[in-house]
Amino acid sequence: MGKEERVLLGHGGGGRLTGKLIDDLIVPKLDRGRLRSLPDSVVVSGLGDKVAYTTDSFTVSPVFFPGGNIGDLAIHGTCNDLACSAARPVYLSAGLILEEGFPMDQLGTILESMGKAADKAGVEIVTGDTKVVPKGSADKIFINTSGIGKVESNPVPSLERIEAGDQILVSGPVGNHGMAVMLSRAEFSFDFELQSDSASVWPLVKRLLELGDGLKFIRDPTRGGLAATLNEIAKRSGKGISVSESAIPVDRQVLAAAEMLGIDPLQAANEGKIVVVVGRGLGGKVLELWAGSELAKGAAVIGEITSADTSRVVMITRIGGSRILAEPSGELLPRIC
Amino acid sequence: MGKEERVLLGHGGGGRLTGKLIDDLIVPKLDRGRLRSLPDSVVVSGLGDKVAYTTDSFTVSPVFFPGGNIGDLAIHGTCNDLACSAARPVYLSAGLILEEGFPMDQLGTILESMGKAADKAGVEIVTGDTKVVPKGSADKIFINTSGIGKVESNPVPSLERIEAGDQILVSGPVGNHGMAVMLSRAEFSFDFELQSDSASVWPLVKRLLELGDGLKFIRDPTRGGLAATLNEIAKRSGKGISVSESAIPVDRQVLAAAEMLGIDPLQAANEGKIVVVVGRGLGGKVLELWAGSELAKGAAVIGEITSADTSRVVMITRIGGSRILAEPSGELLPRIC
Repeated sequence: MGKEERVLLGHGGGGRLTGKLIDDLIVPKLDRGRLRSLPDSVVVSGLGDKVAYTTDSFTVSPVFFPGGNIGDLAIHGTCNDLACSAARPVYLSAGLILEEGFPMDQLGTILESMGKAADKAGVEIVTGDTKVVPKGSADKIFINTSGIGKVESNPVPSLERIEAGDQILVSGPVGNHGMAVMLSRAEFSFDFELQSDSASVWPLVKRLLELGDGLKFIRDPTRGGLAATLNEIAKRSGKGISVSESAIPVDRQVLAAAEMLGIDPLQAANEGKIVVVVGRGLGGKVLELWAGSELAKGAAVIGEITSADTSRVVMITRIGGSRILAEPSGELLPRIC
Repeated sequence: MGKEERVLLGHGGGGRLTGKLIDDLIVPKLDRGRLRSLPDSVVVSGLGDKVAYTTDSFTVSPVFFPGGNIGDLAIHGTCNDLACSAARPVYLSAGLILEEGFPMDQLGTILESMGKAADKAGVEIVTGDTKVVPKGSADKIFINTSGIGKVESNPVPSLERIEAGDQILVSGPVGNHGMAVMLSRAEFSFDFELQSDSASVWPLVKRLLELGDGLKFIRDPTRGGLAATLNEIAKRSGKGISVSESAIPVDRQVLAAAEMLGIDPLQAANEGKIVVVVGRGLGGKVLELWAGSELAKGAAVIGEITSADTSRVVMITRIGGSRILAEPSGELLPRIC
């Protein structure tokens, strides 16, 4: 990267530019063997049990949005990154960066939400840190959470285990979190409410442990949405993916909001959904295992891994054509989580 | 805390106000049993080995300062928090929050420093996250690191183990990091250079393991400096502390800079020092164990735990009087680490 090059908003968007920053700068400087694979969380050895470890910083704006706030989002996000390694979230850390002048009652509300979300997720916040920066040096509040989980599946889900014929599912309608945050930023109001899907998905993953080695891969489609996650799976596995547009669940309100805001709902962030890859023919079994769970309402088999070694995601459109589902560049949606 | 109350800079200074924020708001909302003791790192069970876990966010300004930058500081700070639980740093996470427009070459330099500092400390960065916020929503770069360490002492050093008669040591001259950062912010220049002491202190702690249960407590005197650390020990143990002003090592340049800037060097942050409490008469043994280590150059026995249950730190002054060494309020030194 050249001398004059600067960090762009898109470098944080979770799409192509983020991938470039990670591959060109972060991994070369920091990787010593385990950072390269860039999963949501890393499984480490040498600590007795098989342990998953992850970190995430939250800079969402606005801090309060329909369906949650930066506090519970920070708990769910990190729990979900652990769940993607089939790890039960056990311990969390919380690092707060506060802007001077941030109202103390809002901080109290956020902390309260964090505590409640952690309780509900069955995880304990055991260590923390608080920094305050002068007014104007940060925007209100940023929260980093890291997390430690106990891996409960053997083998651990990973991209290497994906094969042609595997089925791809999503645990429910996509785009709700991103669209709810974007709507709450809009200067005009709507005649419907859209809520973030922010939630801990561990209960869904736990039910999948029964699949044994039929459970291939889990990912939470946050920044860059479903489009980014499917492209990441294709790119990093080197496999092709085929998904059906009509099979991808999207709420009516999300579609309406997406239309108005000019945002592709497949590129909008989720915080309570997972994309799961399972062995051939196991998609129906997943839907059975999830049956009755509020968290998996609207879950669907959306496609499969193909035998084409193209690293591409092909979407069969509603009218029966096919198009490449591109990796989002990420410029459009800063501070979505 | 009232409706109108707002976050003040001093809430992040590591002194009295920070303690108040933690005790009045953070612990009541988030603590479920393990957060209350507020050590530098927490020792958790249920993961096989006895594991220490910690987090720290770094917001230092300027980002580059004599003796280091925010990158190696973020590695050292978290390694040191683990070392304070007598835990060998093993795994780190790194969460970056970048301001749009931050020069990519500076980011590269910072990441390079992180990688090198981690290598030197024998720790591996295994998971990370990068967010970018719009220009003006953060100041350049903030880094959160969390860390996992393997506890290598039995029993684990803790405040509960402190007794009257225990000796207190510091591993070298204090105030260098804080004063180096403050000097680099000053608008005038000096005819001497002052370097941050930023370093991983695990090698020093490792040598102390030989003390067995004679090793009572370890703390790295970061924000609020030695004064904050001694007061925290006194307050949380309920014991009295007596220290000798003339025994506390302070570099000549630090004293000079402190005088010019009007900052008490005992309140200035350190990032490569530890305060250690050991059993009665073991102070000399510690100095022996540290002999020849560059990290412990200037180490000294500075005082002892007294039988007075006062929670106070009394300092015997150079002229033979005594005064209370007060807890810093913390307002003066924002963004020091």
